[in-house]
Amino acid sequence: METLSEQRCHGGVQGFYRHHSRETGTPMRFAVYLPPAAQEGPVPILYFLAGLTCTEETATIKAGAQAHASRLGLALVMPDTSPRGASIEGEDDDWDFGTGAGFYLNATRTPWSAHYRMHAWVTGELRALVASRFPVRDDATGVTGHSMGGHGALTIALKDPKAWRTVSAFAPICAPTQCPWGEKAFSGYLGMAGGSDQAGDDRAAWAEYDATALVRSGKRCSAILVDQGEDDQFLETQLHPHLLEEACAAAGQPLELRRHPGYDHSYWFIQTFIADHLEHHARGLSD
Amino acid sequence: METLSEQRCHGGVQGFYRHHSRETGTPMRFAVYLPPAAQEGPVPILYFLAGLTCTEETATIKAGAQAHASRLGLALVMPDTSPRGASIEGEDDDWDFGTGAGFYLNATRTPWSAHYRMHAWVTGELRALVASRFPVRDDATGVTGHSMGGHGALTIALKDPKAWRTVSAFAPICAPTQCPWGEKAFSGYLGMAGGSDQAGDDRAAWAEYDATALVRSGKRCSAILVDQGEDDQFLETQLHPHLLEEACAAAGQPLELRRHPGYDHSYWFIQTFIADHLEHHARGLSD
Repeated sequence: METLSEQRCHGGVQGFYRHHSRETGTPMRFAVYLPPAAQEGPVPILYFLAGLTCTEETATIKAGAQAHASRLGLALVMPDTSPRGASIEGEDDDWDFGTGAGFYLNATRTPWSAHYRMHAWVTGELRALVASRFPVRDDATGVTGHSMGGHGALTIALKDPKAWRTVSAFAPICAPTQCPWGEKAFSGYLGMAGGSDQAGDDRAAWAEYDATALVRSGKRCSAILVDQGEDDQFLETQLHPHLLEEACAAAGQPLELRRHPGYDHSYWFIQTFIADHLEHHARGLSD
Repeated sequence: METLSEQRCHGGVQGFYRHHSRETGTPMRFAVYLPPAAQEGPVPILYFLAGLTCTEETATIKAGAQAHASRLGLALVMPDTSPRGASIEGEDDDWDFGTGAGFYLNATRTPWSAHYRMHAWVTGELRALVASRFPVRDDATGVTGHSMGGHGALTIALKDPKAWRTVSAFAPICAPTQCPWGEKAFSGYLGMAGGSDQAGDDRAAWAEYDATALVRSGKRCSAILVDQGEDDQFLETQLHPHLLEEACAAAGQPLELRRHPGYDHSYWFIQTFIADHLEHHARGLSD
């Protein structure tokens, strides 16, 4: 692991790091914020997964999380959103597929399957690296995220709720198998649902990365906090929080879905409610 | 005035605007944050002047000021740092002169004098525009800034303390006539001190834009708050807070200069102490 920079912030340290990932076969970047409490001993840790087109810098710079992480004694990890420089043809053609759009899944379709293994990287390799190199409590880990990263946070927690003890999301893609962003990404990374000889297999693979489908299939996690702006330009077409809401209500999965008039999809929205999310995680991880 | 965007943030509105400036002869951009209290009536207002290479977006995105402005009922104005597209030869050659480096002064040397009138723009034209178009109390206006913008804040307040009732700065260039950044900029914009036939005139012109020289010459303003990181990479060569400290002590000008071990010149430093600055201004402007 290479340290790119470390700078004092709110009494702690904001760092940027890079390592060579076995999972993606590329260098991968991530940011870690260590609060002042980490100087006394290991602290709980929150992963923030960013959205389409973002990097490890986006939430680190724009979410305004460090002030609250310092106050609450939480470490923060902000990973990049995809491999970069995997040299796959077409990788950089679209903003919603390939570079910057890893969707926190393990691709099964060639050529993507050799590199686009963001689920394995975040939940396995990166998490182990962070736990081994920073003074954090791996047994007290939560996950949040925005948009594509909100999808990542929800699916990661639902698939392994013992490892990811707290979960929240900002404007998440709640049912990617039922929206254009998800259909495009899952078709490319996982294969066409209904469009191949293994239609049934592909559809099952899609459902493994769909928070609403996971809840419907019986998966559970700790109480979910979701914030959603009502003026979000992607609300109607891409995000579908009502589908997650219906699935959680039917299944008895605790969900607090807060709708905020006037707020859009941006980090101006995220920074407004970031304190509530960090407090949600700090409470859940202090047990 | 053209509205480029307006987005909900911390209960208020973060906007970006553009107008055609008489002073600079170019389109000029600026950001305004209006807190929720502005929906009830005019609010006090704080200008944040950014540093070298920055734009109206830099402090707006990186300083983390909106949460505190919302809580304290302060409006924020973040202006761009220079004219852009003035079509002056060499304007874009250096990062510390020309575009992005207006130094909040009125240039007197051709060709810069036709466009580089940032002091007149900020203190006159922009301020009048903001007062006429937003629900703000022009009689309760303060100014802060970072690095070159800290120099701007200090000199603007010292030159007209009735119009700029509160002042603070992050890592300001305290004595630009005595550091390489200032010597380069003032030579280019104002003429060579001691290097021309009007040496005396030029040196007097330089001193008009040097906070330490202004205090020495008898100028006063309200109590100044300055934060300075001790690991700031520009502290020794460019910033010289000890010269301002000595001048203020000799003159009886109130100054609180706080030195912070481990902090550098970045917005990670600024966001750490931004709350203290907004509280300093809110207190002073509430009288």
